[in-house]
Amino acid sequence: MIGDLLGREQHDIALLQEVWSERDFLFLKKKLSSSHPYTHYFKSGVIGSGLAVFSRHRIQDALLYQYSLNGYPYMLRHGDWFGGKAVGLVIVDISGLKAHVYVTHLHAEYSRAQDEYLPHRVVQSWELLQFVRHTSRGADLVVLGGDLNMHPQDLGNRLFRSHTGLRDCYTETDTFDGCEDGHTLIADNHFTKKQDLIPFEKGIRIDYILMKGSQRVNMKCESLSTTKGPVADKPFPYSDHEALTAELALLRLEDSSQHGLSDTLAVSDQMDVVTEARAVVKEGLCQTEALRDKAMHLMFGALLLLLLPLAMAFLPCSCSFSTVGLLGAVCMGLLLSGAVLYLLFTTHIKVLKETEDQMMLTSNDLQTKLTGCRLSGSSSSDGYPELQPLSPFKWEE
Amino acid sequence: MIGDLLGREQHDIALLQEVWSERDFLFLKKKLSSSHPYTHYFKSGVIGSGLAVFSRHRIQDALLYQYSLNGYPYMLRHGDWFGGKAVGLVIVDISGLKAHVYVTHLHAEYSRAQDEYLPHRVVQSWELLQFVRHTSRGADLVVLGGDLNMHPQDLGNRLFRSHTGLRDCYTETDTFDGCEDGHTLIADNHFTKKQDLIPFEKGIRIDYILMKGSQRVNMKCESLSTTKGPVADKPFPYSDHEALTAELALLRLEDSSQHGLSDTLAVSDQMDVVTEARAVVKEGLCQTEALRDKAMHLMFGALLLLLLPLAMAFLPCSCSFSTVGLLGAVCMGLLLSGAVLYLLFTTHIKVLKETEDQMMLTSNDLQTKLTGCRLSGSSSSDGYPELQPLSPFKWEE
Repeated sequence: MIGDLLGREQHDIALLQEVWSERDFLFLKKKLSSSHPYTHYFKSGVIGSGLAVFSRHRIQDALLYQYSLNGYPYMLRHGDWFGGKAVGLVIVDISGLKAHVYVTHLHAEYSRAQDEYLPHRVVQSWELLQFVRHTSRGADLVVLGGDLNMHPQDLGNRLFRSHTGLRDCYTETDTFDGCEDGHTLIADNHFTKKQDLIPFEKGIRIDYILMKGSQRVNMKCESLSTTKGPVADKPFPYSDHEALTAELALLRLEDSSQHGLSDTLAVSDQMDVVTEARAVVKEGLCQTEALRDKAMHLMFGALLLLLLPLAMAFLPCSCSFSTVGLLGAVCMGLLLSGAVLYLLFTTHIKVLKETEDQMMLTSNDLQTKLTGCRLSGSSSSDGYPELQPLSPFKWEE
Repeated sequence: MIGDLLGREQHDIALLQEVWSERDFLFLKKKLSSSHPYTHYFKSGVIGSGLAVFSRHRIQDALLYQYSLNGYPYMLRHGDWFGGKAVGLVIVDISGLKAHVYVTHLHAEYSRAQDEYLPHRVVQSWELLQFVRHTSRGADLVVLGGDLNMHPQDLGNRLFRSHTGLRDCYTETDTFDGCEDGHTLIADNHFTKKQDLIPFEKGIRIDYILMKGSQRVNMKCESLSTTKGPVADKPFPYSDHEALTAELALLRLEDSSQHGLSDTLAVSDQMDVVTEARAVVKEGLCQTEALRDKAMHLMFGALLLLLLPLAMAFLPCSCSFSTVGLLGAVCMGLLLSGAVLYLLFTTHIKVLKETEDQMMLTSNDLQTKLTGCRLSGSSSSDGYPELQPLSPFKWEE
């Protein structure tokens, strides 16, 4: 059904998430070979990232960034860890314009009231915005589509939008046709469990198409639509999430005076949201340090328990070799589990600290912009000092 | 001693690798607080990436990319896996010029004759070049320093240089003062095991400073030097690798006609080296698939063995509960080990396939350049077609 829809609608680019099976991807690739001859299926994690791109325009290059923090391997019921969640970038040539197209899927929110994965999703939002802002500099236009697993005003969403300047097609579109309030996860969908939506009985908006132009191209969302749950004459809806479709108009700019329109978000707003995000990351750090301590206690406990079979082996008692061996094996199992968990939480702590450091750098940089304090002195008309040549710089490696 | 050297020499930027202990980093940070007030210590993996930057100029932003493939956790003696090897980027403001400075450390080569990690290092080289070329577009100048663990003409090195246009300071410098042939791992160093160098008795060159200018800045290496093993009046050399120091002259360009000098490597050369790299990645894929099969066999073997204690438990025999339990525990241990190894090799296969796909895209793009076949038609003077406005594009998410 998804293949039929994509073949019929003739989108320039389709971005899919949760294509967990490579066979499904290959099926779609074959089915869409005439309408969308260019494809990329991003591979990561154990199961795969699930991210796929189908394009009518030539894909020149692809790049993948796997998020450093993505749940826990022992949460088998949630399973996000095994997906190796990531952001994929394809660079597409659209009639000579360089389009940087991102597709991503963030960690799910299993409980809004007690969201143990909030720090993970905030770290993912940070890595996503860092990846987008550092890899989109040469682009004529930037589009991101994906399941962000965040409501429109959630911290990670505000953080991402304010620091990349990407605009939400839902709030920008001239015309909209779709579910109420743009919901993409709705009650009227066979695959949705009603109780998962409480207290948002009507639905939530967690899938997005975001966009940004450049000095050379002005970008506008002419229309946005969503699928609406049940499909006429079909036994199922297309998916558990409603699909989003945007029509984007590109206007080539003659002068570059309009550039930065989308970037001119107040520096103080950026400061506020990054400060808020740092607090969540710090909280996550405390939680993870507590988990690491528990893993250490498990190791110590197992070591102490190991004394028991050792004592049984060396002291005269009636225990058989097998009993001693079984106890020893159980203790070794516990010790090993503790060690693996200790290593896991240690890597998580590293990621959280790295993110906090990067956020601090960004805060400092924003602070410098706010106070207008510049380290460099007088500058020429284009903002670069006239140093011809500059004195030699020394680098040590 | 390293702190003394850095404090004395007053480099603009110092890039360190293998700073495994955070205490060592904090010690250096304190010691160099007046000469190098700006620092970043990149955190990843279990132990840490070991990468640190000390700068006299303000660090505006930092970004980390951890390599997807980096040895095996069970190779405890090698230990690269635990380091979480990565490339770090800091964006530094040097008198109004935006310098993108990269520091990295690639997987070690433990045996040149039988290098089981070659596919890992080639994948790392690919990820490094992808990261550098996609994150350096806005830069006025680009510098990379690090321990690449590759000889100058090794595949990964050629791949990286040909696809980023970065130039090796050793081959570009006006004057050189240092070890013979620029060696950075030499026999005359207390920390080096002589037998590790065979058959390169005099030493090898595996540490580099690479550089590239931009449309706005021409970059030239005026001098390059290395430390030379023993340090006068000191009990040790500074490190097991010799330190590299480069003096780089920056010349602001009035017109941009010189741009691309460093990028004009023959497209056919780029094709050749990426084809060579694809072959290594494919070979790595075959090896890893064989390893995954072995892990699967281990699991099946353990499952079969599990039948033994199960039979003992249900059939009338003289075995005690403990004997059955011990056998069961051993089988479960084997089964779990097989499962973990299976997951590990599956993720490695995903990474190798993703890398091969990206290399294929690059090959295709180079092929398009070679044949001069362009999908877009006539173009205006600046290379962009005159489409005002372009027809609306449709995106589906």
